[in-house]
Amino acid sequence: MCFVHLSFSMFGCPCSLWDWSCCCASREGLQMANINCVTFPIPNVTPDQAEQQLLKPNEWSYCDYFWTDKKDPQGTTSVAGFEVLLQKQLKGKQMQKEMAEFIRERIKIEEEYAKNLSKLSQSPLAAQEEGTLGEAWAQLKRSCHDEAEVHLKFSNKLQCEVEKPLLTFRDNFKKELKKYDHHIIDLRKQLASRFAGVEKARKALADRQKDLEVKTQQLDIKHMNKHEEDIKKARRKSTQAGDDLMHNVDLYNRAQSKWFEEMVTTSLELERLEVERVEMIRQNLRQYTTLRHETDMFNQSTVEPVDQLLQSVDPARDRELWVREHKTGELRPVDMDI
Amino acid sequence: MCFVHLSFSMFGCPCSLWDWSCCCASREGLQMANINCVTFPIPNVTPDQAEQQLLKPNEWSYCDYFWTDKKDPQGTTSVAGFEVLLQKQLKGKQMQKEMAEFIRERIKIEEEYAKNLSKLSQSPLAAQEEGTLGEAWAQLKRSCHDEAEVHLKFSNKLQCEVEKPLLTFRDNFKKELKKYDHHIIDLRKQLASRFAGVEKARKALADRQKDLEVKTQQLDIKHMNKHEEDIKKARRKSTQAGDDLMHNVDLYNRAQSKWFEEMVTTSLELERLEVERVEMIRQNLRQYTTLRHETDMFNQSTVEPVDQLLQSVDPARDRELWVREHKTGELRPVDMDI
Repeated sequence: MCFVHLSFSMFGCPCSLWDWSCCCASREGLQMANINCVTFPIPNVTPDQAEQQLLKPNEWSYCDYFWTDKKDPQGTTSVAGFEVLLQKQLKGKQMQKEMAEFIRERIKIEEEYAKNLSKLSQSPLAAQEEGTLGEAWAQLKRSCHDEAEVHLKFSNKLQCEVEKPLLTFRDNFKKELKKYDHHIIDLRKQLASRFAGVEKARKALADRQKDLEVKTQQLDIKHMNKHEEDIKKARRKSTQAGDDLMHNVDLYNRAQSKWFEEMVTTSLELERLEVERVEMIRQNLRQYTTLRHETDMFNQSTVEPVDQLLQSVDPARDRELWVREHKTGELRPVDMDI
Repeated sequence: MCFVHLSFSMFGCPCSLWDWSCCCASREGLQMANINCVTFPIPNVTPDQAEQQLLKPNEWSYCDYFWTDKKDPQGTTSVAGFEVLLQKQLKGKQMQKEMAEFIRERIKIEEEYAKNLSKLSQSPLAAQEEGTLGEAWAQLKRSCHDEAEVHLKFSNKLQCEVEKPLLTFRDNFKKELKKYDHHIIDLRKQLASRFAGVEKARKALADRQKDLEVKTQQLDIKHMNKHEEDIKKARRKSTQAGDDLMHNVDLYNRAQSKWFEEMVTTSLELERLEVERVEMIRQNLRQYTTLRHETDMFNQSTVEPVDQLLQSVDPARDRELWVREHKTGELRPVDMDI
């Protein structure tokens, strides 16, 4: 991490580059602004200003793009950039859940289809067809049951190999996210608290400086000694207030650093988790397509025995079988003779 | 057609070889029996008897096996062999109809499945997933609609190419069969009528012969001339009755021939129709299996675009797209400076 150290702090006057109330001033060239207690450089104000490089160039990394709070379009509140990242994670969890629901719906459809085909296969329609044709027909009916089995197997595998993984991936994720959220929020609160401390010390210094100035400009011929004493005291207090301000600024900067580090670490973690989520989903959806391929192939094979028996259909053979069973008599009539 | 001509007619005594009342006698070796007015040879009674050869050997042809009436197991009625053949045809028509019904049921199942898949494809679940993963997911949903189309196409083709032909094949068949039935029945009725004629003539001849015998054995010394006259008259009447019997037997034999010819012709026609029916059904069921094959192949192809998009899923690209849209600010914080 590389901070660009700037030499002036700014406070008091609204800057046209920003929407928020901020502080800016120009002393030695570089300018800063505080937005919601975070200290930012103001870009492009001076030509000498060293530009910030992305921490992870060309990666569109979370750690590079979510520093600023996002202003709520409706009102005056704003949302931390980190919140945007968190919402993205929660949405991802929701997507995972909805995809699992979709698979559940598919499972139900397959089960219904299988049930209907199975029932149809038990139909007595044309059961009285006999011989080789009857066998082919019986196999055709049986193949409907085989198809039902294929679809039932498909739905079972969908449940085990697609729905379940989607449902159970990162069960406890929301809790994890809450932890991250609370931690970052705490660090911002500390930062705000330190910022308040800086403001307080800054005001105290201003007061002390004003007091010193007033006292220095006074002339008191009558009480010269006491006056010198007063000026020395005022000067001492002013110096103390200055030290106090520097101390508060230091505390502030440490708090900001801490928040900064945590932001980078956590946003990179969220980034990694998102990559994992996308890969997990891709895997499961590939499993879906694999099962679909499989299913269509198994389904094709249910037709083969039917084809074979249809090939063997033999009307002559069927006639023989039927005639053997149903013939009434072979003796042919003859002429009557006297 | 080759009739075995036999030299004796038989009548009067029940024959142990048959269930029905019949006539049999043994004069010169070959024997016949009438069953329901049809004249049959009695098989295996004399070693010299020429055996009947099948009209169409090795073919199990209808024309060889349905000459005898079938006795109804419950009662004393019997059913003509031809009726058995006709029932077979009617049953075949029924089978055709039931197969079409089965296909109709399959069509309904496919339509239901298609409807469900299509509805599912329009689900908004996980529609908020973006980037390359979002595209793959959207395609997965779309593929469910593609599958629905495949199954709808399957059901439409089932209707046109399998159900309809099965339903419409030989629409008017029952009427055709009725015609055959009535024609054969009529010929049997005529045969029965001629048979009655023979019986009547036979009885008349017996009466005339008895009368002649009686008259011949009488001695009438008183009225010798008249008596001679009476005997001549009786002899003439006897001869006439004999001619009459032969004439009736001839009419009978012609009626039997006519029925015989029609039996052969019609049973061969029914045989041909049955072969056609079996072939027609085989064809349609083959079309069913062809459509099944097709459907599974088309179905497989619906998964391919999904596979391709899953291949292209790129978490880094998705991060870029999302960060570009949702970033809050790139400027990193800097130390506050006084």
